[in-house]
Amino acid sequence: MHAYDAFLAGPEHSLNLARLQADFNREFDSPCPPVVVVARRLEVMLAGDQCFAIVAGNGHGLVGHALVTLRPTFYFDGPLAVLDELYVQPVLRGRGIGSALIDRLLQGLALRGSLELHINVDEDDTATRRFYEHHGFDNNLPGSDWQMLLYYQELPPTK
Amino acid sequence: MHAYDAFLAGPEHSLNLARLQADFNREFDSPCPPVVVVARRLEVMLAGDQCFAIVAGNGHGLVGHALVTLRPTFYFDGPLAVLDELYVQPVLRGRGIGSALIDRLLQGLALRGSLELHINVDEDDTATRRFYEHHGFDNNLPGSDWQMLLYYQELPPTK
Repeated sequence: MHAYDAFLAGPEHSLNLARLQADFNREFDSPCPPVVVVARRLEVMLAGDQCFAIVAGNGHGLVGHALVTLRPTFYFDGPLAVLDELYVQPVLRGRGIGSALIDRLLQGLALRGSLELHINVDEDDTATRRFYEHHGFDNNLPGSDWQMLLYYQELPPTK
Repeated sequence: MHAYDAFLAGPEHSLNLARLQADFNREFDSPCPPVVVVARRLEVMLAGDQCFAIVAGNGHGLVGHALVTLRPTFYFDGPLAVLDELYVQPVLRGRGIGSALIDRLLQGLALRGSLELHINVDEDDTATRRFYEHHGFDNNLPGSDWQMLLYYQELPPTK
């Protein structure tokens, strides 16, 4: 068995990333655009400076990925980061691949001067919540027992 | 009394925006960088295409603001938006100024092709939660009673 490396993805990884993403969404019954559409969008995104992806793989292919998006903030000079996606193929979980992806993306954020990383998690997804708490994430406001909540709304297409 | 208009801010509004932001953070005992630093960062941000601000005011000055940041997503072609800040001066609340800011920022998002808007709210801030629920935001996953949670971590400065 080969060990898995975690490394920065380029636009050339878009199709493989899109396939992993489709597997991720299928596992959680979450809607996902077609793989070719996701791949095309990721190719554009990864060529820009508002996101980056870390992939885990060996010579035989990719087995996991993390997608980080960046947005500006007035609280510090670097970007505020969101870990929008983190996936490892089910049969390979529990081997530290997710942790390796996180370690590598934290390096990427340090390079970019980001001082804050967010992630949105479902309340009932206890395994995921434990994983992120283990990796230094907190759901409570500093100095309080109150949780921070994510609200969202879908917006109508304009045409 | 003059009515208040909500309109798109430009970089020239940065100092006034920074002052409103400082008032906002002071009200909630939330740390804020010095006004001149916030103003400098907002000036850069508002000149770019990863955020926009709506301000409410009349001929005598500004009384409220909304700051929206944008990040890329592979779920649709436009950006995913976060309403990072929304503030109205305390003595002027309850007059529809917050709603006018929201209406105007939704127009801005429609122009940019954004199909999703997020906002992070503290669990105990019930008035704010009611306000956003009234404006179409939801904290539950579609088809579930589970809440969506925001986790975060602060990252160490690199130098």
